[in-house]
Amino acid sequence: MDELATKVIDIIYAAAIKIKEQLKTKKLVVSTKSSRTDFVTNIDTQIQGFIIDEFMKANRGYQVLAEEGSYNTLNELTGKVLIIDPIDGTNNLILERQNFCIMVALYENGEGKYGFIYDVMADNLLWGGPEVGVHYNEGKIRSVPNLPLSEGLVGFNSAIYRRNAYRAHQIGDESLGVRMSGCAGYELMNLALGRRVAYISNLQPWDYAAGKVILETLGLKVTNIYGNALKLKDRELFIAATPLAHERILELIDSIK
Amino acid sequence: MDELATKVIDIIYAAAIKIKEQLKTKKLVVSTKSSRTDFVTNIDTQIQGFIIDEFMKANRGYQVLAEEGSYNTLNELTGKVLIIDPIDGTNNLILERQNFCIMVALYENGEGKYGFIYDVMADNLLWGGPEVGVHYNEGKIRSVPNLPLSEGLVGFNSAIYRRNAYRAHQIGDESLGVRMSGCAGYELMNLALGRRVAYISNLQPWDYAAGKVILETLGLKVTNIYGNALKLKDRELFIAATPLAHERILELIDSIK
Repeated sequence: MDELATKVIDIIYAAAIKIKEQLKTKKLVVSTKSSRTDFVTNIDTQIQGFIIDEFMKANRGYQVLAEEGSYNTLNELTGKVLIIDPIDGTNNLILERQNFCIMVALYENGEGKYGFIYDVMADNLLWGGPEVGVHYNEGKIRSVPNLPLSEGLVGFNSAIYRRNAYRAHQIGDESLGVRMSGCAGYELMNLALGRRVAYISNLQPWDYAAGKVILETLGLKVTNIYGNALKLKDRELFIAATPLAHERILELIDSIK
Repeated sequence: MDELATKVIDIIYAAAIKIKEQLKTKKLVVSTKSSRTDFVTNIDTQIQGFIIDEFMKANRGYQVLAEEGSYNTLNELTGKVLIIDPIDGTNNLILERQNFCIMVALYENGEGKYGFIYDVMADNLLWGGPEVGVHYNEGKIRSVPNLPLSEGLVGFNSAIYRRNAYRAHQIGDESLGVRMSGCAGYELMNLALGRRVAYISNLQPWDYAAGKVILETLGLKVTNIYGNALKLKDRELFIAATPLAHERILELIDSIK
């Protein structure tokens, strides 16, 4: 197996053990960031630090873009970049103690090389990239059925669905049902597994960097809500979908005008 | 352990093995019922038949109320009643191959005696009743924190949330987030585990019979959306919640008038 990928997977598993220990034995220190419901915990910060430290021990020349603290902006995506969301789904970690993911991605001059999404409590690892294919636990994912919007489930960000932005209700009505899990990593994993035809949200680069590499390797579409390339810079309105569902969703959104 | 409960649990585990075999080896035969997105499969029908047959071998004098076919109505809830939802979350079974439950309840003259909710693919069993307490896998659940609406997640039926019926948006906004899983059993289990403060939906008796017994045993509130007792007769607008969240939600709904 690929040496760099093996190293990242080892770090992720070690981070997951730390998270589980913390959840068992220590008190969660919770604080809010941008709003009453935007949480961060001591675990997010510690795990991000652990992943950066462990990765940097073995690899040189990487810039870091990561959710917590001063790592959350980067002027240029040139060269090698390590992108980390230490806990994707922090509210689920706090309130459910499950349904949260560790996400790591490696980019080179703006191109995705590797993505890793690990559902910590379910112990499901999805990882891959254009040079190594896509792997799910012990297996390999070779393709995802190109189902139309009308034949699958759509994952939604609840704020978008709530205010019926971008024809969200019409998109949901044309599908076989909407789902809201509070975890981008879980929804992106579901897309790779053929359990969703689309996921529509409002995401930061570290929320989608890993998913973008993996889903594009599988031939799925990953763009902003206008069908344009994502910039990996700031928060963007986000669609990941099968090619057929992506086309239909853009048609529906265009028809707003 | 309680002999009747042991028997039901044995039947549920045997049913789950049958479901997993069917998902692995056989083609799913899917048809629609009331609408384009209301599915039933050959598995639902077969599993319901299996549970009824196995239960009746060991127990006499029960009426049956169950989702599929002619079992779906009952004039009187007098005497002993076996209530079954063979697959709760059929769309998830078809489209995700996970996140569906087997639910069984035993009632006597309208009073809940036992409820059983089994998340088949996650292998999580929640069961109990007023005489035996509430059990989750190897452990016992002694109490659920009485959190207010503002300190937890709310599970929603997507149709109710979509059309903002019963102040759904305001209820969601006061909470720490909304979740939609497409499986009543999963949401009811989450309530018993303290992972939700409320679940608001539109349910048939077999969707909530098991959950009602279990959650009421734990001191949670289970009513229709007006705060009145559920009738176990037809589809009803449904709330299950912590006492504090239940009180606040009824206040918000009342304020519509």
